[in-house]
Amino acid sequence: MMELKVDLGERSYPIYLGEGLLQEASAYFDKHGISKRSPILIVTDDSVAGYHLQPVKDGLQAGGYNVHSFVVPSGESSKSLHMLERIVTASLEAGLDRKSAIVALGGGVVGDLAGFAAASFMRGIAFIQMPTTILAHDSSVGGKVAVNHPLAKNIIGAFHQPEMVLYDVSTLSTLPKRDISAGFSEMIKHGLIWDAEFTSWLEENRERLLALDPQALQYGLYQGCRVKSLVVSEDERENGLRAILNLGHTIGHALEAVAGYNELLHGEAISIGMVGSARLAMKLGYSEEIYTVTKRVLQDFGLPVRLPEHYDTAQIMNAMMHDKKFKEGTMTFVIPTEIGRVEIRSDVRREWVEEVVEQLKREA
Amino acid sequence: MMELKVDLGERSYPIYLGEGLLQEASAYFDKHGISKRSPILIVTDDSVAGYHLQPVKDGLQAGGYNVHSFVVPSGESSKSLHMLERIVTASLEAGLDRKSAIVALGGGVVGDLAGFAAASFMRGIAFIQMPTTILAHDSSVGGKVAVNHPLAKNIIGAFHQPEMVLYDVSTLSTLPKRDISAGFSEMIKHGLIWDAEFTSWLEENRERLLALDPQALQYGLYQGCRVKSLVVSEDERENGLRAILNLGHTIGHALEAVAGYNELLHGEAISIGMVGSARLAMKLGYSEEIYTVTKRVLQDFGLPVRLPEHYDTAQIMNAMMHDKKFKEGTMTFVIPTEIGRVEIRSDVRREWVEEVVEQLKREA
Ligand SMILES: NC(=O)c1ccc[n+]([C@@H]2O[C@H](COP(=O)([O-])OP(=O)(O)OC[C@H]3O[C@@H](n4cnc5c(N)ncnc54)[C@H](O)[C@@H]3O)[C@@H](O)[C@H]2O)c1
Ligand SMILES: NC(=O)c1ccc[n+]([C@@H]2O[C@H](COP(=O)([O-])OP(=O)(O)OC[C@H]3O[C@@H](n4cnc5c(N)ncnc54)[C@H](O)[C@@H]3O)[C@@H](O)[C@H]2O)c1
Ligand SMILES: [Zn+2]
Ligand SMILES: [Zn+2]
Repeated sequence: MMELKVDLGERSYPIYLGEGLLQEASAYFDKHGISKRSPILIVTDDSVAGYHLQPVKDGLQAGGYNVHSFVVPSGESSKSLHMLERIVTASLEAGLDRKSAIVALGGGVVGDLAGFAAASFMRGIAFIQMPTTILAHDSSVGGKVAVNHPLAKNIIGAFHQPEMVLYDVSTLSTLPKRDISAGFSEMIKHGLIWDAEFTSWLEENRERLLALDPQALQYGLYQGCRVKSLVVSEDERENGLRAILNLGHTIGHALEAVAGYNELLHGEAISIGMVGSARLAMKLGYSEEIYTVTKRVLQDFGLPVRLPEHYDTAQIMNAMMHDKKFKEGTMTFVIPTEIGRVEIRSDVRREWVEEVVEQLKREA
Repeated sequence: MMELKVDLGERSYPIYLGEGLLQEASAYFDKHGISKRSPILIVTDDSVAGYHLQPVKDGLQAGGYNVHSFVVPSGESSKSLHMLERIVTASLEAGLDRKSAIVALGGGVVGDLAGFAAASFMRGIAFIQMPTTILAHDSSVGGKVAVNHPLAKNIIGAFHQPEMVLYDVSTLSTLPKRDISAGFSEMIKHGLIWDAEFTSWLEENRERLLALDPQALQYGLYQGCRVKSLVVSEDERENGLRAILNLGHTIGHALEAVAGYNELLHGEAISIGMVGSARLAMKLGYSEEIYTVTKRVLQDFGLPVRLPEHYDTAQIMNAMMHDKKFKEGTMTFVIPTEIGRVEIRSDVRREWVEEVVEQLKREA
């Protein structure tokens, strides 16, 4: 078992990484003083529930916890105000009170949704993350929680730090292949923005990682969480540094919005977005090598780097104007300046972005 | 013009109280560095809009602000997730960004709703309160914002402090008579929990206050805000002291829930609730005088003290079990122990509460 502390003053919390942690959840709950007198609500989705809900419930009940669960349909469309309302209904029916905890058992969708429910139910109750996807190594650090609006992703949310993250790598073995690749997308991002050595390690270990070798996975997730947590500790409320985590996300979010949140997984969208950022870097005079390496690593992990032809460039540009990364109308992008380093540039010209979107449709 | 600082460390903010402040809003916005490049959204309701929206818009526009507005139907039922979603739609359409502000122009309903929108839009943007009811002296201090769920009031929300409160007492002249009385209910509460002298002042000045004499009003609102702000400064996140502000609210919220948020105004419901608390105080051995004074002051201000017969006691008891003031199932009440002093008591027996609800139906 590995442990990593996310350093946020009085809101600090640990990430426990290891095999078989979910069965032992009750010991971790005890350690963190979660109330046994107040009901707990586990939020999960219908794919995850089939594999992992019962063992978690059984373990917690055996440990004396009063456990309820609420299952949402799997997929991004569950990140909605409508589903938030239903979780609140379930919470009230289960009798949750101010000392209760809401537990997210699942990927980033369940984490963001249940996290916003925990942030806003009674104006904030305890929240515990049990990530079951690779991508969730990202969403489980930093306290950003949110639901979507039909016009924009993650636009209604809060900052709400969990009490702890229980990351059981054994759950990852049931992940669909496409979600495995998509999950590595954010891990690669963490290398690209902060740590060239980790980027090389990822390239060298891609076979073990894609085969879900537990040792390799645990190390990769640890490093990914570590980078994210260093950045977040510096800038909890996204006033500055934290923006570097948005590498590939401005284009990526626009693609997701245009695709109606269905065609592209989040990790796939930002994979294409990161290639776009590398292309923008070239327009700003940075070396072609950044572009070559970015694209190669992503392709190695089975991620898409080309934007399907049918995406409408005008629509994508329009979606970007709604994106929260544009302060007062300026076009701001995270630009890689070498492998392991990025800069926030506010001088990115709209035409360049348009050109890059077109070029992305022709990536080989 | 009077000014009161709500002391909350780096989240401190001023309340400006006076006549004609809304016309001068732009000067106050300038003083607080509200961005002129980012659009501002005023949220108001259809009653308030008719009287006060245009002057505020005109003033801000003349001052160089880019102002948009969104009008919700007047009444408690606008405090919903559905209306939150519509405000977010309006915010996106108006192009609000992270430097934008959302302004609440109205009573507590608009304040709570627009405040929660400001708390959650992009995970939190600036919020400005322009209260137009007497009751809103209460809701404009303390940063509690929320919407309702069909099963419980104020159950989905956040703590989000405003940048400032611009309290223009001239707007109060258009208030319906019933809302004037209901507004004094929370002001009386602030006397009862903290300040016996203020309670006497309220009794002595009730005619000037009910006639909306600007000097008396300004003083009363100032004192009401002051008591609330002293309590909130001690305990921003409601871990202890702040609970005393709930005098009358446990019963009051249950009545509102049972009445379907329509029959009783908030101030009326807690008026009956405060009489109930005084009756519980007697059961705990405190003097009858507390009950006599509480009831007399409330009646003086034209507030109801009797619960209409048709309210079902079992339903009211049930609604109380959903209320967030019950920690882990214990029945906790704010109990007046003398005029100007209250205590939190966790030893209130369920039967007493039931008896008191029945007695409330027979108050003279
Ligand atoms: N809060 C943040 O900081 C942050 C950061 C990155 C991404 N996100 C969000 O995360 C979401 C994407 O996360 P995700 O990729 O984990 O999506 P997800 O939660 O939808 O999970 C992906 C798919 O895998 C299934 N699944 C999950 N765990 C499984 C398991 N162990 N076995 C079998 N199936 C399993 C899910 O049902 C789903 O179909 C997006 O909504 C994104 O906005 C948030
Ligand atoms: N956040 C808090 O700390 C807090 C504290 C107390 C109450 N509240 C909330 O406040 C709400 C009650 O507040 P309220 O009584 O101000 O209700 P309200 O906002 O509904 O206003 C009362 C009525 O008066 C009308 N109105 C408002 N200003 C007017 C004006 N100047 N001229 C003419 N008509 C006007 C409104 O349209 C409405 O019909 C409840 O939802 C309650 O939960 C919140
Ligand atoms: Zn992401
Ligand atoms: Zn109140």
